[in-house]
Amino acid sequence: MKEIIDKLNKAFDHRVRLGIMSILMVNERVDFGTFKEMLDLTDGNLATHITALEKHGYLEVQKQFIGKKPNTSYAATPEGKTAFHEHLAALESLLNKNQ
Amino acid sequence: MKEIIDKLNKAFDHRVRLGIMSILMVNERVDFGTFKEMLDLTDGNLATHITALEKHGYLEVQKQFIGKKPNTSYAATPEGKTAFHEHLAALESLLNKNQ
Repeated sequence: MKEIIDKLNKAFDHRVRLGIMSILMVNERVDFGTFKEMLDLTDGNLATHITALEKHGYLEVQKQFIGKKPNTSYAATPEGKTAFHEHLAALESLLNKNQ
Repeated sequence: MKEIIDKLNKAFDHRVRLGIMSILMVNERVDFGTFKEMLDLTDGNLATHITALEKHGYLEVQKQFIGKKPNTSYAATPEGKTAFHEHLAALESLLNKNQ
């Protein structure tokens, strides 16, 4: 059991982070507003989890202007994708233990 | 995505709690020392997560003496088992989305 738990990544413990990473596995780049809508979160709550993932090096941020409007979008880094795949593999081991 | 995230149970966000519940799905009753050993945790860390699960009504505690030694053990409640199964089902949906 310890071997499985150790392979679960602390950075992805929170279900909002699982959601953010899942979305970024199938969408190359997602902006703040789209995340908010898809996950139904407040600005503050979403920003906290995005910042945490960014600090781990799992997300990269792009700030640009679309016309005159500022737009902030996010993509998973290669490290983030690898780490998330490993986390999902550990979850799968846990599920198999419980079936 | 929101539908899946909403079905993930906040009480099981932390990987230590996933470990505790997993152990209690296959072992009817587990004592504190066995958890410590299986999950390789400090007393304080383990106690924090056990208390949290107990407050949710997912664990029940039994205190007894084995000979002259006090022994504290834990079992998953029916509510805890149901909640954990629902959490695992939501994790499975998330995994399927990412495959």
